[in-house]
Amino acid sequence: MAARNDRIEEFRAFAGRLADAAAVAIQPYFRASLDVENKGGARYDPVTEGDRAAERAMRALIRRHYPDHGILGEEEESFAGAGEYTWVLDPIDGTRAFITGLPLWGTLIALNDGTRPVLGVMNQPFTGERYEGMASGAWRNGVRLRTRPCAGLAEARVMCTSPQLFDTPQELAAFQAIAAEAQLVRYGGDCYAYCMVASGFVDVVIESGLKPYDTQALIPILEGAGGRMTSWEGGSAQHGGAVIACGDPALHDRLVARLSR
Amino acid sequence: MAARNDRIEEFRAFAGRLADAAAVAIQPYFRASLDVENKGGARYDPVTEGDRAAERAMRALIRRHYPDHGILGEEEESFAGAGEYTWVLDPIDGTRAFITGLPLWGTLIALNDGTRPVLGVMNQPFTGERYEGMASGAWRNGVRLRTRPCAGLAEARVMCTSPQLFDTPQELAAFQAIAAEAQLVRYGGDCYAYCMVASGFVDVVIESGLKPYDTQALIPILEGAGGRMTSWEGGSAQHGGAVIACGDPALHDRLVARLSR
Repeated sequence: MAARNDRIEEFRAFAGRLADAAAVAIQPYFRASLDVENKGGARYDPVTEGDRAAERAMRALIRRHYPDHGILGEEEESFAGAGEYTWVLDPIDGTRAFITGLPLWGTLIALNDGTRPVLGVMNQPFTGERYEGMASGAWRNGVRLRTRPCAGLAEARVMCTSPQLFDTPQELAAFQAIAAEAQLVRYGGDCYAYCMVASGFVDVVIESGLKPYDTQALIPILEGAGGRMTSWEGGSAQHGGAVIACGDPALHDRLVARLSR
Repeated sequence: MAARNDRIEEFRAFAGRLADAAAVAIQPYFRASLDVENKGGARYDPVTEGDRAAERAMRALIRRHYPDHGILGEEEESFAGAGEYTWVLDPIDGTRAFITGLPLWGTLIALNDGTRPVLGVMNQPFTGERYEGMASGAWRNGVRLRTRPCAGLAEARVMCTSPQLFDTPQELAAFQAIAAEAQLVRYGGDCYAYCMVASGFVDVVIESGLKPYDTQALIPILEGAGGRMTSWEGGSAQHGGAVIACGDPALHDRLVARLSR
């Protein structure tokens, strides 16, 4: 256990190298003339050359430095490592933000120890922001983050990437019932919204239909800053799906009680 | 006429000074510590404080350099100048973005010649972006902007700050009918969304309930980049209200024909 914790700073530094490599790979594609491909399927799901280039760059670094670590990424096949650790990668979370030119997308990097994500990074190279989290804390560019207390929904700033992204009408209705009581609702956040909760500017993010690589990097950031991030039922958010993140743990408990009904 | 055009570069440089002054005034309030918010009896409202400080700074500069110019601002009383020119100011457009920590708000500065806005600036100090427009062109940090062609809604990226901000159910329905045909809909843009149209990353912005100081700076940026920005009826957008901006003028004409029904 001590040995595992000793390595967290090593892994944090390595995650920073992954973020740097992804930023270099993505940079030529942000606000460039993009040929956005349609992956197919029912939903419009744009994916860019930047996504693929960044994942390739990160996978190459992981294979070279930690050949026994697993890799779960958005773009390529999963790789089951020989050891306990798996890197969970989303090179460009927020593809709609990316293709519309908005600086709210981010590169998500998590390290999962076989039970849960123990390290998370959200890197936004255009604004020059790096959010990092682990059990001992969360930071933005090295400055410690703290969520803010929020007594109730009447004082809460609530975010959600889009009301169109809920999986079912029941989920949308559950979100709307909470949003109707909030002080303020803001759409269009992607991973950036969770970092604003960790920073104490937003109180609640409620979404659904997420993938494991959408959530795993954000959990250590949220929880390292003093917040909570779970499924709507209160279980681990690491598997994706319907997720809620709150800066105030007591508010989180009350909202999970409503959402899990 | 020649004399008036000769002064546009002078006014452009002066608008840059206004943007700089506003940025200095606002900077302490963006992502300000929330500990400050609970001190004292009166409710501390960082966005209002920043808004007022920036408008004061800009008004002082205008009075000193152009005492005969009028001023229309969000925060203070209008001032009817002796001459033809009026500065139209919104120190923080996108207050919800501002208080939730998102770098999508902007300082809007327009110069109206008594008939229409002839110069517009959108300044985003956190990302270090300055968008400028006039009859002869539009620029982002000095680099010329061009809107992109868009053959039809099936290829269109549509933005809107929030579906909650439409004034009437009829307006919401009109927006939703267009959004349903779009390739992609993204919420949460404020003034930044219009600059993404000018930059060729977004094709359409449709909103309602806007004020004159929300629109006037954006019109020269949009139109200087080759796009069009009007009321839903196709008239001038300078009075605010229900507004549509498109990068492709032919698409704009077709959407105005639908919205003005």
